[in-house]
Amino acid sequence: MKQQINIGLCGLGTVGSGVVKILENHQEQIKYKLGCEIRITKILVNDILKKRDVAIDPSVLTTNVDDLIYNDEIDVVVEVMGGIDNTYTILEQAILQKKHIITANKDLMAVSGAQLLQLAKENSCDVFFEASVAGGIPILRSLSDGLASDRIQKMMGIVNGTTNFILTKMTEEQLPFASVLKEAQELGFAESDPTADVEGLDAARKMTLLANLAFKMNIRLEDVETQGITMITEDDLKFANQLGYTIKLIGIAAINDGKVEVGVEPTLLPNDHPLALVKNEYNAVYVYGEAVGETMFYGPGAGSLPTASAIVSDLMAAVKNIRLGVSGNSYISPQYTTQLKDNKERYSKYFIRMEVDDETGTFFKVTDIFANQKVSFEKILQLPLPNKELNTAEIVMVTHTVNKQQFLNCIENLSELSVVKKIISYYRVDGEE
Amino acid sequence: MKQQINIGLCGLGTVGSGVVKILENHQEQIKYKLGCEIRITKILVNDILKKRDVAIDPSVLTTNVDDLIYNDEIDVVVEVMGGIDNTYTILEQAILQKKHIITANKDLMAVSGAQLLQLAKENSCDVFFEASVAGGIPILRSLSDGLASDRIQKMMGIVNGTTNFILTKMTEEQLPFASVLKEAQELGFAESDPTADVEGLDAARKMTLLANLAFKMNIRLEDVETQGITMITEDDLKFANQLGYTIKLIGIAAINDGKVEVGVEPTLLPNDHPLALVKNEYNAVYVYGEAVGETMFYGPGAGSLPTASAIVSDLMAAVKNIRLGVSGNSYISPQYTTQLKDNKERYSKYFIRMEVDDETGTFFKVTDIFANQKVSFEKILQLPLPNKELNTAEIVMVTHTVNKQQFLNCIENLSELSVVKKIISYYRVDGEE
Repeated sequence: MKQQINIGLCGLGTVGSGVVKILENHQEQIKYKLGCEIRITKILVNDILKKRDVAIDPSVLTTNVDDLIYNDEIDVVVEVMGGIDNTYTILEQAILQKKHIITANKDLMAVSGAQLLQLAKENSCDVFFEASVAGGIPILRSLSDGLASDRIQKMMGIVNGTTNFILTKMTEEQLPFASVLKEAQELGFAESDPTADVEGLDAARKMTLLANLAFKMNIRLEDVETQGITMITEDDLKFANQLGYTIKLIGIAAINDGKVEVGVEPTLLPNDHPLALVKNEYNAVYVYGEAVGETMFYGPGAGSLPTASAIVSDLMAAVKNIRLGVSGNSYISPQYTTQLKDNKERYSKYFIRMEVDDETGTFFKVTDIFANQKVSFEKILQLPLPNKELNTAEIVMVTHTVNKQQFLNCIENLSELSVVKKIISYYRVDGEE
Repeated sequence: MKQQINIGLCGLGTVGSGVVKILENHQEQIKYKLGCEIRITKILVNDILKKRDVAIDPSVLTTNVDDLIYNDEIDVVVEVMGGIDNTYTILEQAILQKKHIITANKDLMAVSGAQLLQLAKENSCDVFFEASVAGGIPILRSLSDGLASDRIQKMMGIVNGTTNFILTKMTEEQLPFASVLKEAQELGFAESDPTADVEGLDAARKMTLLANLAFKMNIRLEDVETQGITMITEDDLKFANQLGYTIKLIGIAAINDGKVEVGVEPTLLPNDHPLALVKNEYNAVYVYGEAVGETMFYGPGAGSLPTASAIVSDLMAAVKNIRLGVSGNSYISPQYTTQLKDNKERYSKYFIRMEVDDETGTFFKVTDIFANQKVSFEKILQLPLPNKELNTAEIVMVTHTVNKQQFLNCIENLSELSVVKKIISYYRVDGEE
């Protein structure tokens, strides 16, 4: 058995520095648990001379990726530099050199995870990527091991800390999106280009990974219907709250009769739903399994040390496999062909706000459209708009459970109705019977 | 590689039936994932003729444990019958016959887990016991694998569903303990002899297992200071709530400078703490890791299928090890010697209620006692008692963080003070800065 495992680290930014720190600070317990030492042999960086907040022997740093890939000493490559195409090539080459891979790269895994995992399997290598979803929360390992015996039927995830931070602030302080985004950027909770976060793409990538693991399929990123939070207003949050709901950016993945839906969209949850209570930059994944019922996994979705802790835990699993001689057995190829639900198979309640003429007969005309689509209501709120001169009122409704097609038909018919001045917003409602 | 793994099941009650159902209903995915079948070869029962809600070939049932232990076909023994001494002997014999063990038996594991795990290791056998703590929540595996790289510093667990159900009902419906206990018994959430649950012993067993896994020690059940919920009154809950707290039966395990405290006691948590929101029979374990920060694992703490799902997931892990030829490598012997904190090293805030003479100078005398122990207050509530003829008032206080010895000194001195008629109750306060 090897007495020392050597790793090559690609990237020494926020997360990479965290990996260095954990390997150093926790080395005693890591060594005890594994029975061997882990040593960082080479670190790939862009700039060797850059000042860093971790002490590194300069001879360990390199700007040449070949020093890692074609280094016979290195057993495991830990990739924390990000990027897709170029990074894929590096990891592919590393696997062909029989190196195991630990990555935090959700973008890459969501797009090319299946190929990379398959290639690794063919080369008896492990690829672990716990850190790519929900930072420090061990959700991937819980799905693949802890809940292995169960059939997962539904997952709802708050898997993007930036948007959860923004929505929490908007809700608690009744502030508009733009000003909270600015605050989040100043606090470092949002990037200077926040598009991938606020448009839901980051969450969609993570839901792709979660859904594939839970449903044993090969769902593609483009199968995930994605909507962000930029259109959510303070009034949406206020009226939702009046009806007992909190708005969260929820990634959903559900399976019924072998057909799946995976999506990311703003969703109303009852105020006492476990996910409604997940605040600020925290993440949580709610998992409903046929046998286990409701579970939830909660924790920090990002950050240097939380993310690095997931990476080093993955690394320890890879090292254990190396020492036992059983690497390359973790990945199970998809068991099922992906079948996506169409809109008629996607059931949900909906919340809708519209501005209507404040005159006799309006309410009848509006509800008639819903009735024609066999959509009934659970909650209705009617209130005059602040500007009375316009002679309009606002109606806020929550439907009973309907299929998405029924609801979209209602939206189309409503928009053709003259008494409906404007459909202000509509969102999915989930998390209650 | 073996194409079929045979198991012997000890016990066919609620959980045992769940194991049979999951192995049957999920067999397609289990076979796909493992690459082999799992077959139940023998089931140990007390009464072969008893009517059951799962269909079992009668030839599989036996009342003779030797049919399992000395059966060369059987690879894994799944123990779901409970009991300690007799069960230990059975599992010991099974291990000596090179059988792997999956157990849901917290009583046994809390008392004799270390010996059993050591014996198994010496015999290259696996012992998995995920189902013994928090039912369907994969918390043991998360501690040992998912958070492997981290140093766990504190855990707080709601690990007993019965007491959480009772406290939730008492809080929400302002009912006394006795009547809610009765309701819980009728609903099947409490046993006819509820002692182990309501006195905190069940939770103490689970905290022993969690603490040993997290802190890599051999903490004994008798090291766990245990207090139940029978003394909690509606007024305790009401006044706690007035100060912004929820009372939960919390198992705590914390380590500082290598010294640990493990206990179970009613504890006040801020109303918005993730654990305060865990209701009814649900369980949750809050884990604070040095690197990962705050995480929480939430789910059903008991029940046939949730518990069985944890058992079958454990079974799948054991089968995987068998097929790869790496059984007996999971258990890591304790790395550290147990060192318990004394009362001066156990820090906390405290909530205290007392009945005092409603006269000039009382408040000074009371606060003087706290001041002498250098204990200051965060919150104080003074209110006249309903029965004004007694001329007494009630004082409710929450201290700043103090060590337990300081606080106990205050209690002793207060009880000697003539103006203090009665110390009504006091509890630990946790979960806030």
